[in-house]
Amino acid sequence: MFESAEIGHAIDKETYDAEVPTLREALLEAQYELQQQKRFPVIILINGIEGAGKGETIKLLNEWMDPRLIEVRTFDQQTDEELARPPAWRYWRMLPAKGRMGIFFGNWYSQMLQGRVNGDFKDPVLDQAINQSERFEKMLCDEGALIFKFWFHLSKKQMKARLKALADDPLHSWRISPLDWQQSETYDKFVKYGERVLRRTSRDYAPWHVIEGVDAHYRSLTVGKILLEGLQNALTRSSLHPDKVNAAPLPTQAVDQMNLLDSLDLTLRLDKDDYEEQLITEQARFSGLMRDKRMRRHALVAAFEGNDAAGKGGAIRRVAAALDPRQYNIVPIAAPTEDERAQPYLWRFWRQLPAKGKFTIFDRSWYGRVLVERIEGFCPPADWLRAYSEINDFEEQISQSGIIVVKFWLAIDKQTQLERFQAREEIPFKRFKITEDDWRNRDKWDAYRGAVGDMVDRTSTEISPWTLVEANDKRWARVKVLRTINRALEEAFEKSDKKAKKHKH
Amino acid sequence: MFESAEIGHAIDKETYDAEVPTLREALLEAQYELQQQKRFPVIILINGIEGAGKGETIKLLNEWMDPRLIEVRTFDQQTDEELARPPAWRYWRMLPAKGRMGIFFGNWYSQMLQGRVNGDFKDPVLDQAINQSERFEKMLCDEGALIFKFWFHLSKKQMKARLKALADDPLHSWRISPLDWQQSETYDKFVKYGERVLRRTSRDYAPWHVIEGVDAHYRSLTVGKILLEGLQNALTRSSLHPDKVNAAPLPTQAVDQMNLLDSLDLTLRLDKDDYEEQLITEQARFSGLMRDKRMRRHALVAAFEGNDAAGKGGAIRRVAAALDPRQYNIVPIAAPTEDERAQPYLWRFWRQLPAKGKFTIFDRSWYGRVLVERIEGFCPPADWLRAYSEINDFEEQISQSGIIVVKFWLAIDKQTQLERFQAREEIPFKRFKITEDDWRNRDKWDAYRGAVGDMVDRTSTEISPWTLVEANDKRWARVKVLRTINRALEEAFEKSDKKAKKHKH
Repeated sequence: MFESAEIGHAIDKETYDAEVPTLREALLEAQYELQQQKRFPVIILINGIEGAGKGETIKLLNEWMDPRLIEVRTFDQQTDEELARPPAWRYWRMLPAKGRMGIFFGNWYSQMLQGRVNGDFKDPVLDQAINQSERFEKMLCDEGALIFKFWFHLSKKQMKARLKALADDPLHSWRISPLDWQQSETYDKFVKYGERVLRRTSRDYAPWHVIEGVDAHYRSLTVGKILLEGLQNALTRSSLHPDKVNAAPLPTQAVDQMNLLDSLDLTLRLDKDDYEEQLITEQARFSGLMRDKRMRRHALVAAFEGNDAAGKGGAIRRVAAALDPRQYNIVPIAAPTEDERAQPYLWRFWRQLPAKGKFTIFDRSWYGRVLVERIEGFCPPADWLRAYSEINDFEEQISQSGIIVVKFWLAIDKQTQLERFQAREEIPFKRFKITEDDWRNRDKWDAYRGAVGDMVDRTSTEISPWTLVEANDKRWARVKVLRTINRALEEAFEKSDKKAKKHKH
Repeated sequence: MFESAEIGHAIDKETYDAEVPTLREALLEAQYELQQQKRFPVIILINGIEGAGKGETIKLLNEWMDPRLIEVRTFDQQTDEELARPPAWRYWRMLPAKGRMGIFFGNWYSQMLQGRVNGDFKDPVLDQAINQSERFEKMLCDEGALIFKFWFHLSKKQMKARLKALADDPLHSWRISPLDWQQSETYDKFVKYGERVLRRTSRDYAPWHVIEGVDAHYRSLTVGKILLEGLQNALTRSSLHPDKVNAAPLPTQAVDQMNLLDSLDLTLRLDKDDYEEQLITEQARFSGLMRDKRMRRHALVAAFEGNDAAGKGGAIRRVAAALDPRQYNIVPIAAPTEDERAQPYLWRFWRQLPAKGKFTIFDRSWYGRVLVERIEGFCPPADWLRAYSEINDFEEQISQSGIIVVKFWLAIDKQTQLERFQAREEIPFKRFKITEDDWRNRDKWDAYRGAVGDMVDRTSTEISPWTLVEANDKRWARVKVLRTINRALEEAFEKSDKKAKKHKH
């Protein structure tokens, strides 16, 4: 894999000096075109052997191009705000917006390689990390991002010579690498695991470019040309991501017309006394669980979806009422803002994730993609079709970091909805809750039923199951929501306890 | 100041139960109206004596109103990301957007009171903090924010009784107050300094409301009614902030037609050899200063303003070229995004402030308010007139936290601009740089001259002086910019050294 990067590539100064001016102009032009189009972001990953010219190349790119449109991101020590959230959060928050370039130095690849070389974990964990990166990059590309991955390479001999030269240069002495590159063994391991990583993450949508790092002219010209070609190519593409869908279309309903939602018993109800007793019991239990010291290693995310007027707001208020307002944060999801539209779809949810010990309630959620966006045609089928697996990835990632995810679909029947709409129109302070949109959505009742069925089938996982809530009776729904949350917390705590016990033995 | 809040205010349950439903409905209606209008944010500050019902009130407000439109913010321990930035950064980043409500618990008042009661500092520092808060709130109100400040009060006797009751309540045992309220002395001091703070920060635009905290019915009803009245009042105001300007208008030019910019000698230039030598010298000096270990206690902010085509971009690139791209961040300022428009004017700059040791370059800056916005009439005179002092406050605050601020106006004459515009239109990769807007701005040349004069007169301060850069010769300009930055860094380091020395003796 690194063979061609150890053969002594070199470009003489004359050729270099002759080629650079044209290259620079073309790069600048491409960069301004990128900014004008604002159609996609460019992400440049810089990895490789110590001393192979990573830092120099970043510096050069900033000189050649307009640095005002480039963001250089380094990921050293995690801050405490980052440590309190899933590992990928720090990358999500640093993504460049459409029209801009982000150079990621010390990215997810450096992290997994350092960990493996250091012996912090073995191959299975490395492979998990590789797999996650692959999915992350695939998602970014599907969202339109243009990714360049550069691996700067040196042979062991070349590296040793280079490190010696750098050690004498005061401009470089301040750099700290977490790995001890003076050791032969470090190089060997790095190259070995590096090959594994490159092999498995070099994909059509985001291939690796291995660059021999010895000769600065060769290195710079090669990187510049790869960038230019990739940029020009992407800028003239008419469409950002594949619109065509290879899979057969999802049937809007089953051949026997049966739907998952039919299986719900919407007559379930609680009388007032039972409700008040059970509500208070579950609220107290919830309050206790949230103050449990095991909660410090977890966080809670609840996503509320449901038919219009199904009572999401009321259920959320009963959940919130159990807590001190400092423990939770409610995020109402409406149309994305300009800043949010300039980022991948899931970005707005990533940035709202709770820190350890905290609770975020999403009033509507990332499932909008496969509900309203699917039904209203706000995004092409290719986008919402891939959303199912992107969402599963997202929930898996955040679960792994200790976030407990609960998801509710509050279901009512069509008649109940009608009655509630009419009632809302009559109560002054509820008039705001009912709009033309609500009436229009109602006409799409069946389309929503189909979409909900698909959504639950494809995203109800062991890690994060859907809970369908019979909500014709608001009391029943509220108690069921709280009880579900409580069970999820208890299960998570039990699992942690078991793990802790296992470690003790 | 607290007399009326120790007289045993109370409301019987019957009255309370009778009044609450109407109050809640009206509050909800006001809240939805607020969301619909999206004209201003609501900020609610909660302060006062321990045990006087602060937490309970926040909880109640979340129950009475729609919690999805409320953000409860607590400010406990600073995170390391907050510690690396000016103290007010943590409040700026948590401001609610227009149409939303933010409840700030543990806000700037708690911080200053705790510090003073603990004896961390004396009255002069307290007064500085008071003064800063005043200016901050004034700015927020001028930007349209509606601020409520509640002080929950108890007499000492009442507090002791209350703390005893709370100690027995398991739901409250987890609360930690950084002050030891069991001590009589704590109460006395808190009330003493509290009075000082309330007296000096109760202003027409954001008065304090002192609420007796003993009786929950009284407390809740009072807070609810104050909120409702304030909200209703603000929602029906036709204009958010005073449009009328009391001061006489600024003359567009001096009676003798002389302008500060006339005093510049635009013939200043460097020949190529001098330029190259001096540029390299200054870049090396700059690189060294940025790696100086004293830089760890500072950060650097450079704001670039100037005539169109004055060479801001080129100067910025020469500055950046001296550094490792990981040390700096360039922020181009264009029209604000939707998220930014939902916040006070300075918000977008606050959020880009560098952490300790880092450098942020603003390509155009917060001075847009008194330049383009003033001249194009993007904001009423009242807004840009107050901007001068808001900007001075902003720069003073960030300077105090160790940020070194340098500001450049790159000046060219009208003929030079014309030549550069024409040249740009001919070079392919520079065509992007010249737009219709540039030609239109050129017609307003004299208006800009006047505005620049006013800007420099009003915001060139000892803390953060303006540097006018003669930029007809790009070489001269670039070297002057770098040299100015270097001097600013050296001066700041010398000051730190002197301070350190003083402390030693």
